[in-house]
Order: sequence, then C-alpha cells, then structure tokens
Amino acid sequence: MTRKIIIDTDPGIDDAMAILFAFQCSELEVLGLTTTYGNVPVEISTKNAITLTEIAGVNVPVAQGVAVPSVIAPRPFPDFVHGKDGFGDINYPDPKGSAHALSAAEFIIEQVKAHPGEVTIVALGPLGNLGKALELAPEIADLVDEVVLMGGAAKEYGNVSPVAEANIINDPHAADKVFTAPWQVTMIGLDVTHQVCLGNDVLERIRAKNPSQGGFLYDCAQFYINFYSDRFNMDGCYFHDASTIAYVLDPSIFEVELGAVRVACEGIAMGQTIFRPEGVSYPEPHWDNMPVTQVCMEVDGERMLKLFEDKLSA
Amino acid sequence: MTRKIIIDTDPGIDDAMAILFAFQCSELEVLGLTTTYGNVPVEISTKNAITLTEIAGVNVPVAQGVAVPSVIAPRPFPDFVHGKDGFGDINYPDPKGSAHALSAAEFIIEQVKAHPGEVTIVALGPLGNLGKALELAPEIADLVDEVVLMGGAAKEYGNVSPVAEANIINDPHAADKVFTAPWQVTMIGLDVTHQVCLGNDVLERIRAKNPSQGGFLYDCAQFYINFYSDRFNMDGCYFHDASTIAYVLDPSIFEVELGAVRVACEGIAMGQTIFRPEGVSYPEPHWDNMPVTQVCMEVDGERMLKLFEDKLSA
Repeated sequence: MTRKIIIDTDPGIDDAMAILFAFQCSELEVLGLTTTYGNVPVEISTKNAITLTEIAGVNVPVAQGVAVPSVIAPRPFPDFVHGKDGFGDINYPDPKGSAHALSAAEFIIEQVKAHPGEVTIVALGPLGNLGKALELAPEIADLVDEVVLMGGAAKEYGNVSPVAEANIINDPHAADKVFTAPWQVTMIGLDVTHQVCLGNDVLERIRAKNPSQGGFLYDCAQFYINFYSDRFNMDGCYFHDASTIAYVLDPSIFEVELGAVRVACEGIAMGQTIFRPEGVSYPEPHWDNMPVTQVCMEVDGERMLKLFEDKLSA
Repeated sequence: MTRKIIIDTDPGIDDAMAILFAFQCSELEVLGLTTTYGNVPVEISTKNAITLTEIAGVNVPVAQGVAVPSVIAPRPFPDFVHGKDGFGDINYPDPKGSAHALSAAEFIIEQVKAHPGEVTIVALGPLGNLGKALELAPEIADLVDEVVLMGGAAKEYGNVSPVAEANIINDPHAADKVFTAPWQVTMIGLDVTHQVCLGNDVLERIRAKNPSQGGFLYDCAQFYINFYSDRFNMDGCYFHDASTIAYVLDPSIFEVELGAVRVACEGIAMGQTIFRPEGVSYPEPHWDNMPVTQVCMEVDGERMLKLFEDKLSA
C-alpha cells in the first residue's frame, strides 16, 4: 500500500531535492504540491513546483497558497541561499503547466476529506497554508494521518537568530497553530538537519545514473553548496527539506523525543520552537495539555543519504 | 589584597549559604548586602540579611531595595522552596539591627564611586536593584570590577518554564539592562548549578566544626532539601547561589563560554537568557554590538563543594 502525501513547499533548492526524491518513491503517492512564499515569492515557488512535476514527468496538481505571513510583516527573501529564481539562478525555462483552481488550503482540505485518516502532510516552508486550512476547517486535524514538517530547533541554535529557524520565524503564529492542533506533528528541525552534509559526490553519482533529474539537482545545488561552503566552511550543504521524505519512508533512521512545542511569537525570541519534554511540568502553564509532538533529535545520516541516492538513482 | 564585594540578595536558603560562605573568606571584603524581593518579600529578605550578619558576628550594612519588578506584574513567592520566612520555616528570632538609610541602588552607587574599579557585585536574586542603579547612575558600569550573577540558563532547561530561570523571569527587563550594560558580567546559571548537588553529609560535617553557622545552615536547608528530593528525586539540593562566591574565590573551577546575552521580555519565552556565542552572526541583529558576557557552562563540583566546606568549617 502506498502512503498518500501532500507536499507544502517553497522551492527552493532543498525543496527540489525533497520533491524529486518523493516522486521517485513507489511507496508514496503524491496527491499534490501546495505552495507558499518562503525561499522565494509564492508566484515563483508555484512556477518552480510545476517545473519539478514536468522534470519528473508526473501528473501532480500544484495549488498556490499564501503570499505573506498571517500576522507579522514579511521578511526579506533569502536570495543569497537559493538564488532569485529559487533554483540557484540557473535560468531554467518556464514550465508549460499552470496552477490548480483551488488555493493551497482548499486543496489540502479537499484531499484530506476525500481520504480520511490517510493523508500525510509534508511541510517544507513557512506554515501559513496549514494554519489557514486549520482555520477554514479545524475538523481536518482529526482526519490527517501525520504532519511531518521541516522547521524549528529544540536544542540546536537557530539559523535566523540564536533560537529561531527560518521556516518558523517566517510565520510564527501559523506555526504555533500547527504545533497546538490536535493532530500528530513530527518536527524535523535543525537538531537533525545540522547533523547531515550532502556533498557533490552524492549528487554526481545520481547525475550519472539519472541525468535529467540528477543533472537538474546538481546544477541547482551548486549555488546552495557555495553558500554553505563560504558561510560555514562545509564541503557540501545541509539536507534540510529532503530529510522529511526520508522520515516518511523510514522513520527508524531517526531518534525522536516526545513533548509539547509552542512557538514564541513576540520579541527577540520570535520564531523559537520551545520544547517541553513529556512528563516535565513548570510553573508557567503554556505547555500544559498540549499535543505531544515527535521532535527528531538524532539521525543516521549515512542511511538517510543512501536512501536518497538509491531512490534518485533508480 | 582582599576583593571588595557587594552581595545583592533575597535570602532565601541558598542565599544564606552564599552569604555565610562569603563572610568566612578572608580574601573577600563584604562592603554590604543589598536586598530585593524574590524568594520572599523584600521586608523579609532585609530582615534575613541582617540576621545573617548577626549570626556571623560581622558589622556589614544591609540596604533595602526594590519590592516589585520594574515593568511586569509580581509573580507569587516560592514559599514551597524556601518557606514563608525564607529560612525553611525554622522560626528563627528577629534580628536586633536595622537597615541602612540608603536604598540598595543608592548604596551600590555610593560604594562603587568610593572604590572605583574595585567593587564586584554578586547578584543572587532578581536584578531590579542593579537595573535601578544603572538608571540612576549609568556611569557606574565603567567603575564596577565585575558583576557575577546567579541566574539564567543558556543551554539547560529553565526552572520556571522550559527556557526561563526564576531570578531572571522575576524581572526580565532589569536583567536585559544588566546584560547589555558596558560592564563585565559573568553568568552562573542553571547550566552549571544543575550539575552540583549539595548533600546533608557536607552540611553535617560543617555543623560539627562550626556549630553556630553550620547548625543554622543545616536547619534551614532541611526544607530546601525536602523540596528537591520530593520534586527531583535528589539526595540533596542544588547549590545555586553559593556558586557565585566559589567563582569569585576561584574562577578556575568553572569553564566559561563567551557571547552576547539578551533577555526575552515578552510572551512565552519571557525570562529566557538567549545566548549568542562570540563570533557567530545571525540575520536577526538583537545580539550585535552587545557586551561579551562570560557564561559558565561547566563546573568542577567536587572542588566547589570542598571550597565551601573548608571555608565554613574554619
């Protein structure tokens, strides 16, 4: 049996890796891509999501979502990480297809209700579309199988502030809605994604076996790898978004801790995912009676990269 | 040469340990105790500070300070930790002496200006008096030798929320003033104080050698140890406040990390000491161009407890 997923995304170079990875997995049925601003404006992320379906040759709908955060002012786009085009400024031609008639939130609601208990939402960007879907139809929380999101940092330092990760700080109010809704959330944050470095060696081997998709990913990734090697002296790049697909395929690659997660929405802590381990209580009650999130704390990077390489090389 | 210190305090059982410890050290000249609300209301902490001078038989002034936080509403007093009397409800008789004519902030300013470059402020409670002294006379920042404070948590979980420690959350605005003023701050927070457990064995040996002070500390500590053993299944109590005196005597017992500390003053992160390691920069600028705080991350607990026992047994 295949697992039905919707990928909410802002491609984005590591989003592209995650999406092409997912399309290669016979274990997964990608019901659709829903798009958000984040790495790039939403119009570009929609165009890029359609491009990815065409590169993979799959007929998967792309529904466009929110363009701005739900409450706070928009932050600048990180074109120094993903390029202005979200694909590392490789001048890739525009796609032929166009977006679905429904908005991202409407598409999520429609699909979740059509397949009650069966849909996993994999979220790779700011969480505005999930927040909006919960606002429009709170009953979907009970009908979703799992929300697997890339975002946050429980014990690791952030990447936008000492405590905040980029996806969460881009819409902290929506993120807090997602972490406190009555569905199963699994958080794949910097605690694990900072443990794994994807090097050009892996991308080169994939390109040799699967030139069209592998070549595209390799070309995009050079800009991203240059950012990480310049900034952090790494021989490669972090594997942020694609970690979610590895988790959906094989959660045994990860070690999780259980607890409540709330998101700071004000002041200098804005965007922090504050984790209260299960079974611990504090005088401050904000974490009491909140859903139990699975927070990934450790990952077997070698197994994860092998899974990625095997699937994309096939 | 002795080191001049002022102890800003809210006794408090671990404050009592710190103060009697300091009085026993010939290396230290305690210019005065300044009091604040915190573990108990300020009237009680003043009375208790005077009691401690009388138990030690020293002629050290006690200046009363602030009764409430500078901006936020007061929090409830933790009588389940220190007892209603701040000494573990031992019904100790009232002292004979009375408080100094100056307020705590005025006393700090007077002493710092009288001994420029020579005074270390050891802060054991909420930081309202230090914040007020900085407001009244910002020039003292340049004249203080060092501020050594017990409070905060950089990487460790908090004790009032997952991210907030009690002293800091009791006046986060004052704490942020202290961490961002141009003086040398050393933070001794839960990162180190949660590494050390003071057991009754040490207190019993001190009592045998120094019955008046040791007996008093032993009696007070039973309430405190009962709290920690019930709540955290510990065979003793944390050594929070007295760690500052050990640091002043012998900083080599501690390992520090350097960086900027800012305090979250809003929302669910209120009271968090957010640490940005030296040399790292983030898109969020709140830590840029801030003073370099020494944050204690590791401590040799055995050496610290031995120093405490040796001094108090003498």
